[in-house]
Amino acid sequence: MTELMEQRHIHPQSGTAFKLKSGQVLRVIDPMGEQVSDLMAYSEADLDEYLSSGRTIDYANTIYVTSGHTLYSNRSNPMFTILQDQVGRHDFLLTPCSPETFKIIYNNHAHHPSCFTNLAQHLAPYGIAPDRIPTTFNIFMNVKIADNGELTIAPPLSKAGQYIELRAEMDMIVGVTACSAEMSNNYSFKPIDIQIYD
Amino acid sequence: MTELMEQRHIHPQSGTAFKLKSGQVLRVIDPMGEQVSDLMAYSEADLDEYLSSGRTIDYANTIYVTSGHTLYSNRSNPMFTILQDQVGRHDFLLTPCSPETFKIIYNNHAHHPSCFTNLAQHLAPYGIAPDRIPTTFNIFMNVKIADNGELTIAPPLSKAGQYIELRAEMDMIVGVTACSAEMSNNYSFKPIDIQIYD
Repeated sequence: MTELMEQRHIHPQSGTAFKLKSGQVLRVIDPMGEQVSDLMAYSEADLDEYLSSGRTIDYANTIYVTSGHTLYSNRSNPMFTILQDQVGRHDFLLTPCSPETFKIIYNNHAHHPSCFTNLAQHLAPYGIAPDRIPTTFNIFMNVKIADNGELTIAPPLSKAGQYIELRAEMDMIVGVTACSAEMSNNYSFKPIDIQIYD
Repeated sequence: MTELMEQRHIHPQSGTAFKLKSGQVLRVIDPMGEQVSDLMAYSEADLDEYLSSGRTIDYANTIYVTSGHTLYSNRSNPMFTILQDQVGRHDFLLTPCSPETFKIIYNNHAHHPSCFTNLAQHLAPYGIAPDRIPTTFNIFMNVKIADNGELTIAPPLSKAGQYIELRAEMDMIVGVTACSAEMSNNYSFKPIDIQIYD
């Protein structure tokens, strides 16, 4: 990792998508702290190959992946290696927040921005349909699990400026958001910065 | 639920698939005890709508779904309601065992039956491609999670004859297996019985 090739500022409650080449490093930065960023990825060579929470959790043998872990595709191929992880707490259990999330969990039937619609909007130009957005890698999201299996969505552990670095293990289309859900972000919506290094 | 419409015996390390109509009840039985059964489902009206672990866990707010919980699709529509659950411990985190599972986790590069190939084989006649098989509902699978997130695959809690009953909330194509992975089934492969009630 030597040269900064590109950087993008993701405004609160929005998203972006881009190509990432094998060997490039994606740095996802929480510039203000306590902000979640949902990430999804697809093989550029075949969009039917995508980032798989189930394969990743199974092979890592933990629900909390961090530095040194590999993120796998549904075909069990490595998609990312986590290089540096300054936070150490991310979620890979839950789907991105969607209009239905706000109806079902928050009882909010009005319009509300969501990671799902932000990913769908930015992935569409690459030929990726909304139904192809499964469980995302929810960077900085802090999900605690009680012994009886119950979940608590706690404030992210990320402090201002902290980041995670992911090395691409194949050519990919990647979608990234600044998450739109109240509970996941300690009830304030902040930006996310990304940097791509060659 | 009044009338038994159909029953099938799933031999060890094999699978099946069938149509299930809205309102019908699927009973998945562990006839000998300590045997996992992976289940996957698709909307018959649109195969791009499928059972979603992430949506289900998010809305149930627990990783251990049981009697009274709803299993949701990727579009946040109810697919199943769990009526009776005599066991109370199932997994919805992990993908079905596949040839790669045995290579990566068991270091076994020889041929090995797997839930993934069994599901793929039986779902293919309905037009469902292997890449459309995500994280399955792993009935009777006993996954324990330590505080640090680490997983332990323990023997199923199911005793001989115990079952779970799922009411279909839409017309579906359903795939079911008798799981092929050593660790998940306390190192012996047993059958699974299913019954469909109208």
